[in-house]
Amino acid sequence: MDYEWQKAQPGDLAQLVGLSHKNFIIRLTPGDRLQTHRGILYHDDLIGIPWGSEVSSHLGSSFFLLQPALSDLIKETKRTTQIIFPKDIGFILITMGIGPGSRVLEAGTGSGAMTTALAFAVGEQGHVTTYELRPEMQQLAQKNLSRLGLQDRVTFILRDIGDGFNERGVDALFMDIPRPEDYIPQVRTTLKPGGFFGCIVPTVNQIERLLNALQREDFAFVEICEIMLRYYKPTAERLRPTDRMVAHTGYLVFARPIITSGKALEPKTLDDELS
Amino acid sequence: MDYEWQKAQPGDLAQLVGLSHKNFIIRLTPGDRLQTHRGILYHDDLIGIPWGSEVSSHLGSSFFLLQPALSDLIKETKRTTQIIFPKDIGFILITMGIGPGSRVLEAGTGSGAMTTALAFAVGEQGHVTTYELRPEMQQLAQKNLSRLGLQDRVTFILRDIGDGFNERGVDALFMDIPRPEDYIPQVRTTLKPGGFFGCIVPTVNQIERLLNALQREDFAFVEICEIMLRYYKPTAERLRPTDRMVAHTGYLVFARPIITSGKALEPKTLDDELS
Amino acid sequence: MDYEWQKAQPGDLAQLVGLSHKNFIIRLTPGDRLQTHRGILYHDDLIGIPWGSEVSSHLGSSFFLLQPALSDLIKETKRTTQIIFPKDIGFILITMGIGPGSRVLEAGTGSGAMTTALAFAVGEQGHVTTYELRPEMQQLAQKNLSRLGLQDRVTFILRDIGDGFNERGVDALFMDIPRPEDYIPQVRTTLKPGGFFGCIVPTVNQIERLLNALQREDFAFVEICEIMLRYYKPTAERLRPTDRMVAHTGYLVFARPIITSGKALEPKTLDDELS
Amino acid sequence: MDYEWQKAQPGDLAQLVGLSHKNFIIRLTPGDRLQTHRGILYHDDLIGIPWGSEVSSHLGSSFFLLQPALSDLIKETKRTTQIIFPKDIGFILITMGIGPGSRVLEAGTGSGAMTTALAFAVGEQGHVTTYELRPEMQQLAQKNLSRLGLQDRVTFILRDIGDGFNERGVDALFMDIPRPEDYIPQVRTTLKPGGFFGCIVPTVNQIERLLNALQREDFAFVEICEIMLRYYKPTAERLRPTDRMVAHTGYLVFARPIITSGKALEPKTLDDELS
Repeated sequence: MDYEWQKAQPGDLAQLVGLSHKNFIIRLTPGDRLQTHRGILYHDDLIGIPWGSEVSSHLGSSFFLLQPALSDLIKETKRTTQIIFPKDIGFILITMGIGPGSRVLEAGTGSGAMTTALAFAVGEQGHVTTYELRPEMQQLAQKNLSRLGLQDRVTFILRDIGDGFNERGVDALFMDIPRPEDYIPQVRTTLKPGGFFGCIVPTVNQIERLLNALQREDFAFVEICEIMLRYYKPTAERLRPTDRMVAHTGYLVFARPIITSGKALEPKTLDDELS
Repeated sequence: MDYEWQKAQPGDLAQLVGLSHKNFIIRLTPGDRLQTHRGILYHDDLIGIPWGSEVSSHLGSSFFLLQPALSDLIKETKRTTQIIFPKDIGFILITMGIGPGSRVLEAGTGSGAMTTALAFAVGEQGHVTTYELRPEMQQLAQKNLSRLGLQDRVTFILRDIGDGFNERGVDALFMDIPRPEDYIPQVRTTLKPGGFFGCIVPTVNQIERLLNALQREDFAFVEICEIMLRYYKPTAERLRPTDRMVAHTGYLVFARPIITSGKALEPKTLDDELS
Repeated sequence: MDYEWQKAQPGDLAQLVGLSHKNFIIRLTPGDRLQTHRGILYHDDLIGIPWGSEVSSHLGSSFFLLQPALSDLIKETKRTTQIIFPKDIGFILITMGIGPGSRVLEAGTGSGAMTTALAFAVGEQGHVTTYELRPEMQQLAQKNLSRLGLQDRVTFILRDIGDGFNERGVDALFMDIPRPEDYIPQVRTTLKPGGFFGCIVPTVNQIERLLNALQREDFAFVEICEIMLRYYKPTAERLRPTDRMVAHTGYLVFARPIITSGKALEPKTLDDELS
Repeated sequence: MDYEWQKAQPGDLAQLVGLSHKNFIIRLTPGDRLQTHRGILYHDDLIGIPWGSEVSSHLGSSFFLLQPALSDLIKETKRTTQIIFPKDIGFILITMGIGPGSRVLEAGTGSGAMTTALAFAVGEQGHVTTYELRPEMQQLAQKNLSRLGLQDRVTFILRDIGDGFNERGVDALFMDIPRPEDYIPQVRTTLKPGGFFGCIVPTVNQIERLLNALQREDFAFVEICEIMLRYYKPTAERLRPTDRMVAHTGYLVFARPIITSGKALEPKTLDDELS
C-alpha cells in the first residue's frame, strides 16, 4: 500500500531544514535545484520521498524535508521592513474572529507577512483586501504572496488611506502603519458597527494617541496587550530557558466601533476581571 | 439602502456585553429571552438591529450587541476542567500549520475549548477527530460544540489512546492530557512523517519526561516555549499595565517525527539563532 | 555549650509565621502578648528559645519564630498608600550605590517603606533625609521607622520640595512622588555632579515627561527598566509557576547629573550592548 | 567655597564611561594612566576635578568621570565563569536580610562577583566567609576583591564543602555551585535555626533535586522565583522596550531551617496570598 499523501509532490511547498537550522522554503518543481552554502539539492530527488525524510546535498550535508507551517512562512517572508511575529499574529487572528470565510481589510501591506497570515486563515472562501502607499512595498508583497500561491485571495490596493477605503460593512480591519491615530475616522466608515479593529504599534506614545482617536470615533471595548514569548533549551536533564529572548515587538490594540444610546461607557476594569 | 449584513439575524451567534463586562453568548432565536442578573433581554428586540448597538434590559441596564470572536467563544466555554487560553491557542494553530482544510487529531477533548478552536480554524473543508476517555467530558464537549454549530466538523471518539488512534498519515496532532509522555509511540504511528505534534503541559517535570519520550521515537525540531500575555489599562493619560496578570497556563511543546538516515541530530541552539 | 546567639532575646525583632502564612512582626518584650485570630502568644514563651522553633498559641495553632529580613519588614509596613515592592528596592539600592555609610535623600516619604530600606542599607554610619508634604504620612512613616528602631538614622522633613532641598552635594536621591518631572531643577541643585538619581513612576506618561525634564537639566546615562518577579510552587514533582503574578508595580528611572564640555551626548543603545 | 567632596580624590574608585559606553573602572593613582582603544587618560588629569565631568583622551574621545555603583562593580568583575546579575543580587540581599553588620557565608566563590556584593553590603562591621574548591578561581576572586579594597571584609577558604563548613550559628548562607542539593546537610549544620538559606541554579532539574534535599533536612518556607528585567529605550517621543533582553540567568531558591515540634507543614499556597 502506497501512502501517496505522505510523500512530497510536484507543486508542494517544502521547507528544507539543515542541521545548523538554516531554513529554505521552495516550491517543488521538476528539474529545479536549490543552491545552499552547504551544497546543491535537486528537486527531482525530493519529489516522491516521504515528508520528514533526511536528504543529503551534493556535498553530503544533511537536510530534512518538511512541510512549512504558517509560522515558518511568516518567518521566511522576504522583507525590507520589520514584520509582525507569529506570537502576535496568532493572537490577533483569534481575537479578531478571523477564520475560514472571513472578509478582512489590512492597512499597511508592508512586506506582506501579515497579509500572508490573513490570506492563509481566511481560506479559499474568504478574502483579504490590503492597502499600501509605497509601490515598491506592494510589489514585494505581491511577489511574496504569489510565491506561496495565495495571491488569488488578496486584492492589493495602492492608495493613501487618508483618502478612505473603498469597502463598507467590513467585519475586521487590521492596521500596521506609522500613524494609525490619523486614520480612525476612515476606519470607522469602512468597518461595520461592532466589527473588529486591531492594530500593532511599537511605542507607548502611539498607544496614547490611538486611545484618544478611538474614543473620539466611538470605539469601545478597547484592549491593549503585549505578548512575551520565551523559549526553553530542549534538553531533558538540563532544562532551562534560552539565555536571550525578544523583549518587544509591538503593543496590540483592539477595539470595537459601537452605536451608543447616549450613555457614557464605564471604563473596563481588567484587574477586577483577573482577580 | 439597507445594509442587512450589518444587522443581527435569527440564528446568528451573539455576545451581549454589559457595562460591568459580564458576557453572555447566545444564538438569536425568535421568541427566546436572556435572563441576566441585570434584567431580561428579548431576542426579538435584538434581531434586526445593527451589530454594535447599545440595548437595554427590562431593568434599564445597558448591554452591547456584538458578534463574538473565537477568543470569546473559548473564554465562555462551559467547563469542568482548566481550558487552554486564547494566547496559547493562537500560537499553537499558527505553529502547527492548522488552517482551512486541515485534518487534525486531538487527544484529550476535555471541555472542548481547543476542539472549538480547531473546528473553527479548519473550516467546513477541514475536519477534527478528538479522543477522550471520560464519557461525561465528551458529552460536555459535544454540547459545547453543538451550541456553536461546529459539531459537523468534529468526530468524537471515546477511547483510551493507549489502545492507539484509528487514523494514519495525520497532518497534525495536538495533545492535552495528564501524561503525554506515555503515548508518543501511538502518536508516532498515527502522524505522518514530518507532521506536526503539539502539546501543552503545566509542569516542568512533564516537559522532561516528554523530551525523553520524543527522542526515543525519533521526533526532532523540538521547540519548548511559554507565552506571557500582559494587558494595559486603556487610559491615554495614565497608561500602564494592569496590576496583576496570569503568570502561567502551560508550557507548549512542539516536535516533528522524522525519518533519519542514521546520523545523530545536532541539538538546536536557539540562542545562536536569537543573537 | 549554649549558643545564646541562636536564641531570641528581649528587644529582638521577631516574625511569627503561621501555617496559613499570616505574618506578625513584633519586638520581643517581657510581659507582652501577641493577639492573633488563631490565639494568643506570650512574648515570655518566645524569649530564650532558638530561632526557627515551632511554637503554639493558646488555641493550639502553630507558628514559627523567625528573624525578619528587610523584605519582610517592607511587606509588613503599615501603609495608607501603595508601597515599593522588595523586587524593586533591591535593584534600586544596588544600582544607586547605596550601602553602609551612604548619605542619601528621599523625596516622598509616604508610608516609609523605602525609607526603611534606605535606613537599613546605610547602616549606623550612614544617614537618610526624607521629605514629605503631608503631615499625616510623615507621622505614619515615623511610627513605622521607630517600631523597627531605625529612627536615629533618618531625618524627617515636612516640606514642599518645590521650595528646594536643604542639602548640597548629595550622593544619591530617590524620588517617589506623583510628578517627579516638576522637581528636576531642585534635584540637580542638591545632587552632587555624577551623583545617583533614581525614581519610580507607575505610568508611561510620567516616564515621557521625566525624560524631557532630565534632558533639560543635563542628566545623562538614563536607564529605564521594569522588574518582573515570578514565583514557582515549591513542589518537586509538579514544579510550575504560580497561576498569577504581579504584572506591574512601576517603572524605574535612573540618571546621573553630568558636567558636559559642550558636546551632545550620543544616545545609549542598549540593544547593541545586549546583543 | 570649595566642595572637596564633589571632586575625585587619589585612591577613589572611578568609572570612565565613554560615549560608546565602554566602561573602565580604575583606582585613581597619581602618575598612572588608563589606556583605552580611544586614547589615553592620565589619572593626574582626573584627580581634583568634579565627579560627573566630561574629560577627553589624548585622541580627543570623550569620557565621563563617575563613581561606580555596586551594580557597575559587579558587571565589571573580571571573570572566567558566568556571574550573578545585579537584578538577582539586589533581591537576594533584601530577601536574606543581609546588610551592615551581617556575618554571612558563601559557598562557591567563583569569580567573586557575589562576594563583592556581600562584602559591600555587610560594611566594615560585617564579614563574609567564602568557600571555593578551585585554587585558580579563589585567586581570581581575591584579586577582584583587592582591586576594590574589599579584601579585609572577606575570609577566603579553599575547601570541598563536602567536608563541612567551619562556622556554626551562621545568619545567612548563599550558595552558587553546580550541585547544591548534595550539601544541604552541611548547610543545616552551619546555619543557625531560622537562618537564611539562598541559592541560584540555572536549571529546573536542579530546583527539583534541591527541593527534595531541603525537605529531608527540615527546611521550610521555601520560595522559588525568577526575576526578569526589561529595559526601555530612553527616548521620550518614541518610548518602547529594547528589542532584546536577557531571558534567563537562574532560579532563586530561598529556605529557612526550622525546628518543628513534629507537625507536618502545610505547603505554602502563594496563589492564595497573591489573589
